[in-house]
Amino acid sequence: MNNSNIVVTGAANGVGAELCKLLRSRGHRVTGLDIAEPKYDLDAFIRVDLSSESSIAAALEQLDGPIDGLCNVAGVPPRQGLETTILQVNFLGLRRFTYGLMDKLKEGASIVNLASRAGYGWREAVDQVKRLAAVRTAQELETFIRDENIDPARAYNLSKEAVILWTQAETEALLARGLRMNSVSPGAVATDILDDFSRAFGDKMARNVERAGRPGTPEEVAEVAAFLLSPASGWMKGVDIPLDGGMGAFNLSDALELSALRLS
Amino acid sequence: MNNSNIVVTGAANGVGAELCKLLRSRGHRVTGLDIAEPKYDLDAFIRVDLSSESSIAAALEQLDGPIDGLCNVAGVPPRQGLETTILQVNFLGLRRFTYGLMDKLKEGASIVNLASRAGYGWREAVDQVKRLAAVRTAQELETFIRDENIDPARAYNLSKEAVILWTQAETEALLARGLRMNSVSPGAVATDILDDFSRAFGDKMARNVERAGRPGTPEEVAEVAAFLLSPASGWMKGVDIPLDGGMGAFNLSDALELSALRLS
Repeated sequence: MNNSNIVVTGAANGVGAELCKLLRSRGHRVTGLDIAEPKYDLDAFIRVDLSSESSIAAALEQLDGPIDGLCNVAGVPPRQGLETTILQVNFLGLRRFTYGLMDKLKEGASIVNLASRAGYGWREAVDQVKRLAAVRTAQELETFIRDENIDPARAYNLSKEAVILWTQAETEALLARGLRMNSVSPGAVATDILDDFSRAFGDKMARNVERAGRPGTPEEVAEVAAFLLSPASGWMKGVDIPLDGGMGAFNLSDALELSALRLS
Repeated sequence: MNNSNIVVTGAANGVGAELCKLLRSRGHRVTGLDIAEPKYDLDAFIRVDLSSESSIAAALEQLDGPIDGLCNVAGVPPRQGLETTILQVNFLGLRRFTYGLMDKLKEGASIVNLASRAGYGWREAVDQVKRLAAVRTAQELETFIRDENIDPARAYNLSKEAVILWTQAETEALLARGLRMNSVSPGAVATDILDDFSRAFGDKMARNVERAGRPGTPEEVAEVAAFLLSPASGWMKGVDIPLDGGMGAFNLSDALELSALRLS
């Protein structure tokens, strides 16, 4: 996969920045997109506001194919007053941007979406995710948020549930085009938005981080995203990869009393 | 991870053989274990019958630490008359061998268990898995198989459900020792035991393979196992990775009518 063309959104900092640096260190050509300009070298940078349809359209016009991989990292954290932006950027804009780029992707290209451990409740949220996915205008989005009492924490979780489910929903259609898409769901990651998650999710997150020993690092998330972009993961399709230092396993083991399976 | 010491069970053919070759091509020292002798070069080979406690004990005595990684690939397919052997080799022997090797694993070492798409029913099988995990003698195993009407297909599914659940059950205890364990769950894979699965699982498997376009290859499974053994996947702990060319996503998308999430 050397010298392949990879597109990464959310490139200015955190996981996106680490992924761009990692891919460039391996010889790939990386085009980064973000609302803010990155403070390190990229092969190309395109400014985009994923909450704006016209900004997405303008960014797509600047992107040339053929592209070997797309990693959708850009995301807005759960912060007061950002309900609309969270749903736009984390899911509706991500979906719009990905569809727009589809015809420029090479056969065999890999798409990777950054979801989150916050999206693990997707089984119980299918109906609400469908209502969000059916939203077409800014006015409909405002009505949806008001009618369903969406606060910032719920907006964030819902946006990530939507990413996980949409990734699976597209798998068969993508296969017919020779493309594949997977998602990665990190638990708490040590970036400059970790405080937002602490405020939104409180004790539950703190307990998980304590049991895991520490939060994850952007580098650890970037390594898994890079693997999913590479041909070595070629048979992985429509899958969500939990990446949480064991947090999911601790919780499942508690809930199902799995310690009974151990020999001690 | 160059020049690390990796132990692989089921090394004689199929996924195990491909994994050994891949790891050796990357500069690792590979010790393969199997009931049959491999027909290619390994750094070391140890004969073991994972259905026999004394054979496992003898194999463990021949293994020197420190070891950087263990991949438990050895498995018996769903074949008439093999109920006992399937449960012994695929889960009880795997668990016994892994515990026996634990003190020879280096801090930071990775354990990878080959589970299967056939184990995806683990949510509904927790109680039966606990009863299997509590079996201590050959006589108790015979009683369990008779009382619970375990046929070869059920024995196979149960053994893989047990591997997936046990992997999660050990995560927190392993973390305290600086170790981690994950599982990989392939769908149909083109090896010489594929016919056994076709007979046991019939039309359902054939439909999945048709939708995915083909079965997976041993090389594709080996690539994912190698990634889970490597430090690049270091923050993945207690996770099961579906590896099925999209089969799981197709089925989930059908069941939840996720096509509603797509824009067309």
